[in-house]
This record gives sequence, C-alpha cells and structure tokens, in this order.
Amino acid sequence: MTPGRFLTLEGGEGAGKSTQLRRLAAVLADRGLDVVVTREPGGSEGAEAIRSLLMDGAADRWSARAEALLFAAARADHIERLIRPALDRGAWVLCDRYVDSTRAYQGAQGIDDAAIMSLHRFGSQGLLPDRTLVLRIDVEEGARRAEARDAGALDRFAQRGRDFHESVAAAFARIAAGEPERVRLIDASATPQVVTDRLLAAISDLLP
Amino acid sequence: MTPGRFLTLEGGEGAGKSTQLRRLAAVLADRGLDVVVTREPGGSEGAEAIRSLLMDGAADRWSARAEALLFAAARADHIERLIRPALDRGAWVLCDRYVDSTRAYQGAQGIDDAAIMSLHRFGSQGLLPDRTLVLRIDVEEGARRAEARDAGALDRFAQRGRDFHESVAAAFARIAAGEPERVRLIDASATPQVVTDRLLAAISDLLP
Repeated sequence: MTPGRFLTLEGGEGAGKSTQLRRLAAVLADRGLDVVVTREPGGSEGAEAIRSLLMDGAADRWSARAEALLFAAARADHIERLIRPALDRGAWVLCDRYVDSTRAYQGAQGIDDAAIMSLHRFGSQGLLPDRTLVLRIDVEEGARRAEARDAGALDRFAQRGRDFHESVAAAFARIAAGEPERVRLIDASATPQVVTDRLLAAISDLLP
Repeated sequence: MTPGRFLTLEGGEGAGKSTQLRRLAAVLADRGLDVVVTREPGGSEGAEAIRSLLMDGAADRWSARAEALLFAAARADHIERLIRPALDRGAWVLCDRYVDSTRAYQGAQGIDDAAIMSLHRFGSQGLLPDRTLVLRIDVEEGARRAEARDAGALDRFAQRGRDFHESVAAAFARIAAGEPERVRLIDASATPQVVTDRLLAAISDLLP
C-alpha cells in the first residue's frame, strides 16, 4: 500500500486554486494513485453545514474569534470523518484551503498565530499537510478574476477590501518563510499548464 | 445605574432550569430590575444557528472536540452580541446553561477541563457569571421528567444513557467544590416555590 499523502492548495481570491486542484488530481489519478479531492471549510457533512454559516451573510456576521472557532470545529470534523480515514487507507488527499488559510485570514484580522495553532492542536491534533502549495498572483488581478467568476455573489471573505487581501498575501509569505520544507510559494501568473507543471515540480520528491 | 449582574442556571436534564429561570426572572423584574433572559447554546442570531447544529441529529453527529469548539464559537457570539451589551447597560442577565455545562458535558466525554477553559479565554476573555446556580435532582427522576416533557423528541444530549448523566452530575459537583463562592448547588427536589426561595437565598448578597 502506498502511504497516504496530504497536499493542500492555498492562496488568495482568484489565484486559480480550484482549477489547479482539478488538474493536479487528474495527473495524480493518471499515475494510478487513489486521489481524494476535498475543500475547506467543508469536506464532510458536518463541516459543510458549518461552511454555510461561515461563507454566507454579511462580512461582519461573526467576530474574528468566533470565526476561528468555527473553522477549527469544521476542520476537526473534516479530518476525523474524511481526511484521516483516506490517509489511513493510503490515498492522496488534495484539499482546497486548510489551516494555513485560517492563519492568513484570521491573522489578517488580528488573531495571534499561536492561538490558531493551539485551536488546531485541540481539535485536530495539529495535523499538517505533507506539502502546502501557495498560489501567488497580484492581489488586484486576483480580485478581478474572483469578481468575473462569481458575478457579484462574492462570499464574506472575497467582499473585503484590498488592504485585507494584501495582509492575507503577506501572511502566506510569512508562513512559507517559517516552514520552507512544507510550504512552497508558486507563481500562478502563467497559463494553467505552466502552473500545473510548477506544482508537480514542487511535489516531485513525494511522488512514487 | 445598577451594575449589571450575570447569573447562570445549570444542571442535568429535567432539573427544572427553564421553569426556575422564568420564576426567578419574574421576581427580579418585580423588584424593578432590568432582566434579560437568555439561553445557551444560542441567545444571539449566530449562536442560535450554531445551536441547531449542536442539538439536532444523531448523538454521535459530532466528536466531543468539534462539539466543544462549536459551543465556544456560539458562546463568543452570544457574549459579544447580547450578554456584554446587556451587562454594560446595567441589566441582570439570566442564562439557561453556560460554560459550566460545556465543562460538565464535554468533560464527561473526556475533554480536559483546562482545555475547555482555554477555549473560553480565547473566544470570550473567560467571562464568568457573578453566580452560578446548579439545580440538583436524582438522575433517574430528571430523565423521567425530561422524557415526559419532550415526549420522545429528546435532543442529542438527553438521549445519552444513565452513566453519562451521572458523570455530568459528578462534574457539576466538582466545579462547585472548586469555586464555592461563584457556584452553588441547589437541591431541586422540592416544589417550584421552595426551589425559587432557595435560589433567591443563594443570590441574596447580590441583590440591591
């Protein structure tokens, strides 16, 4: 049995995470791997119910602290019900956003990184991915792409202003600098094929 | 302005918390106090949405840890949106269940008390009531009363077995022993009027 691997894709709005997740999953499945594609918040029945509380409604619906607790609750359920069982049977789990998004987005609202990691240890024994790929594009370009994609139905996070999204981008850069082995910054301002090739290069050491 | 006071009622299933909360609120309002009656989980719009995730569905819908995080998220919202503003304007807030229920119920499922208090500090700056009144009745008698009241529609917690409810009762007794000034055990195996008199005696030092 291939040991399971846990990969996450991260990045700001409109960076192309969903597209790249699908492309990466297709390449890995072509190589005969058991691939599970999932997302956060959500990915399990309970976590998807929490997701709608988190993503819908006014931007100030929740305080940053209530939000961090809801993300931690959703993640605990997602890991217990979907991610751990998949990893235990040897699957490759590809997840669209994970704890690094909570660190970047709630961190940009003033929540201490150590506190977020402490919630993650409480809820999920601090499970971290084998590799985290952060897609980087210019914040304005990302906002344009997200706007075009969601046609005026932006979620609670995408609604926030440019300063917020610059803080998120800076937080991802700090996380990558602090954990260079796990977290890789990927320049996503290229064609989808080129970006997929960059992602594959960044996980080549993990591939069988 | 009367300084606001924060009182909570706690106890196992069928101990008569809701009845006593109404009776106590009526007595305090008769004395001219601004009384706010609320409940947990819930009490604010966001927390009520989290409440339905917590109370409905199968008993094993959430792990004990996901559950503790959801309670902490609901409490953070409830305090920020309802309890703190009411206390700030000088109201007497009477709440049906609070963090001591999380300590007792999640503690009975093996979650460390220090971890629950740490979530409470993160979400809600560790706000504790001025007085907590724990209604005590025999566990079997409480189960009979809850069953009669809810007629087969017991929530996720009431559904659990006798051993669980004995552990909850023991946890409340431990909390009271550890914080005797804040937390008072009240014998609730008497007529409603007698129990209300006992509650009033247990808060007499707080009354104006």
